Amino acid sequence: MTAAPAALPRSASIDWPETAARLLTQLRRNGTRVHAITNAAAQVLTANLLLAVGGTPSLTISPDEITAFATRADALLVNLGTLDNDRRAAIPWGIAAAKAQAKPWILDPVFVDASPPRLELARLCLAGTPCVIRCNGAEFAALSGRDPSPESVGEYAAALRSTVALTGPVDWVSDGERFVAIENGHPLMTRVTAMGCAVTALIAAFAAIEREGFTAAASALLVAGVAAEVAAERAAGPGSFPPAFLDALHGLDQAQIRARARLA
Amino acid sequence: MTAAPAALPRSASIDWPETAARLLTQLRRNGTRVHAITNAAAQVLTANLLLAVGGTPSLTISPDEITAFATRADALLVNLGTLDNDRRAAIPWGIAAAKAQAKPWILDPVFVDASPPRLELARLCLAGTPCVIRCNGAEFAALSGRDPSPESVGEYAAALRSTVALTGPVDWVSDGERFVAIENGHPLMTRVTAMGCAVTALIAAFAAIEREGFTAAASALLVAGVAAEVAAERAAGPGSFPPAFLDALHGLDQAQIRARARLA
Amino acid sequence: MTAAPAALPRSASIDWPETAARLLTQLRRNGTRVHAITNAAAQVLTANLLLAVGGTPSLTISPDEITAFATRADALLVNLGTLDNDRRAAIPWGIAAAKAQAKPWILDPVFVDASPPRLELARLCLAGTPCVIRCNGAEFAALSGRDPSPESVGEYAAALRSTVALTGPVDWVSDGERFVAIENGHPLMTRVTAMGCAVTALIAAFAAIEREGFTAAASALLVAGVAAEVAAERAAGPGSFPPAFLDALHGLDQAQIRARARLA
Repeated sequence: MTAAPAALPRSASIDWPETAARLLTQLRRNGTRVHAITNAAAQVLTANLLLAVGGTPSLTISPDEITAFATRADALLVNLGTLDNDRRAAIPWGIAAAKAQAKPWILDPVFVDASPPRLELARLCLAGTPCVIRCNGAEFAALSGRDPSPESVGEYAAALRSTVALTGPVDWVSDGERFVAIENGHPLMTRVTAMGCAVTALIAAFAAIEREGFTAAASALLVAGVAAEVAAERAAGPGSFPPAFLDALHGLDQAQIRARARLA
Repeated sequence: MTAAPAALPRSASIDWPETAARLLTQLRRNGTRVHAITNAAAQVLTANLLLAVGGTPSLTISPDEITAFATRADALLVNLGTLDNDRRAAIPWGIAAAKAQAKPWILDPVFVDASPPRLELARLCLAGTPCVIRCNGAEFAALSGRDPSPESVGEYAAALRSTVALTGPVDWVSDGERFVAIENGHPLMTRVTAMGCAVTALIAAFAAIEREGFTAAASALLVAGVAAEVAAERAAGPGSFPPAFLDALHGLDQAQIRARARLA
Repeated sequence: MTAAPAALPRSASIDWPETAARLLTQLRRNGTRVHAITNAAAQVLTANLLLAVGGTPSLTISPDEITAFATRADALLVNLGTLDNDRRAAIPWGIAAAKAQAKPWILDPVFVDASPPRLELARLCLAGTPCVIRCNGAEFAALSGRDPSPESVGEYAAALRSTVALTGPVDWVSDGERFVAIENGHPLMTRVTAMGCAVTALIAAFAAIEREGFTAAASALLVAGVAAEVAAERAAGPGSFPPAFLDALHGLDQAQIRARARLA
């Protein structure tokens, strides 16, 4: 599962724990602003994740306010869940505002495998060249028309001139030139709604600091995976896991990241 | 309060703890899909309850996506809370998709006693013959025009050719032929928003496995009531109760259900 | 920071712990109804805060239902966050219903500093004379055109013939004649989304019992600040803080309030 594609060199030269901890420190210091156009089930957890790491979230989806909020933000997250008329109208203006300010935006094409209009809209969004696309295997397959593999992830990233972060039991990140697999995380993450959506907001916050989507995405997934492992040791199940996850993110330091990091 | 109506035999022949545990096991094994058109305050807790018991929730309320999602799901939940234009437009298409696939759908007529347009819409929904109607006493009175009693619940279920699950300090379930009262539960359930709405999603998940609404509803209310009792022993108040409730649901087994079940 | 304006007498004559505890007791006894037109990130926490103190929340934002719900409620909260078309249409009808019934309504002008259309709408709302305006420093500056200070808060309250509650590390409350500073609270409150929005719902509930906005607002901020301090001692970070905060509110009594109250 985690074999790198032959054509893509491993990113062995990056000290991931150091990089992730550095981005986390800068995020806490800067109070990085992320505007999230995200789904109804993700709004609270997304905002609380950003607050737990010292960021500054905003969440409006109103089409006539989105420009003001996206312009103020350091990065924009576009999540296609619960795609109602307001969200549909807000998304292109949000992306336009981010691009006009040369700020990164991140796409989370939730459930494009389940809804044809959503898949069509995701393809239109891709024309705006997100800094990172974060998806799961089924969403990747619907978007790219290929089975997920390190090769197909790398090739799809190259075709889009973007970074693809495919999350699952092992997370794969590629920008078409480099590839990294992150083995951190915990199964309880799949028993909490919108956990992946919220983690994508951390990718957005890191991308505001580190414009290379590859580095931002892999660092954010490492931070989230380590925090999930810390939290799972304290939690009694999927109900106590999200509070413990936010507590763990809030206190996370480089020593914890280094002790637990498993990248390949 | 818990006296059975003279006309309705008790369901003494059903081993409720065994039935509830069997449905829970199948739900965990199948990853049963429930699509929930539910209110804004209930979406996260509903999804997290379904995930905690091993189900697969989806939540979109977008009218042009609802058909795809309701068709994919094994059961549909229609909750009339925070009834905005999108929800209003999505509901009839969701019900139509469920019926076209011969999949069960469940009605939760939240606050029909408070809003005349909502009461009218609930009556239109009832023409689509839900598998189960889950309501409280005030909602039952508004819908049926009668004071809640075992007799009126049974007769209203018979008139609707459906199952009525009336929840309160004691839960009453009747399909017009049988009646059961479930005494499990805890007062902290009333100090958490959308707890009843979320439990209705468990009825929907069980109805996907066990098409008899009477059996599905009573089993789900038994599971939720026992989990609430376990959680209340671990919780320090209404804030720590929901995480403990999800943890308890996640780990619940037949021994716990049997040790605590109080049905009449 | 906490110096009183020369022109405004301190409210030394009020026994704040006794007043706050009395309002809390009445709220628990009455099950005070608050209808909240509030933002998507605040709905669940707002409802759960009201339930934790024994109140009865409702949350619909549907324009054709708002009149029925606002009429049933004892107080109305209008929060301008995530201001979509439904919320925009519902707000004036909600305010009209509250005023028609002579019931108090409270304004929370979230992020008026970030969105010009929201600022314009907030000014239109102010024409409806809210009982209390709860805002932070940036929102106050955008609304009043002045830097926040005890003087400017008092003068703006006098100009509006309302009570202004400006929250921050120290909370300032003035009705233009009196002034009080509440020093209770905890920094973790700023690491949880919608915490300020939810506390404003407690102001609304207290205003339903005690029509003097000055007394209601200061008492609610005292209760919330003390509960936050209790919760912070039990919490391991921003994830476990909200459950602990609701638990603390649920159990709060006059002795705890008196032991911790710091007002000036």
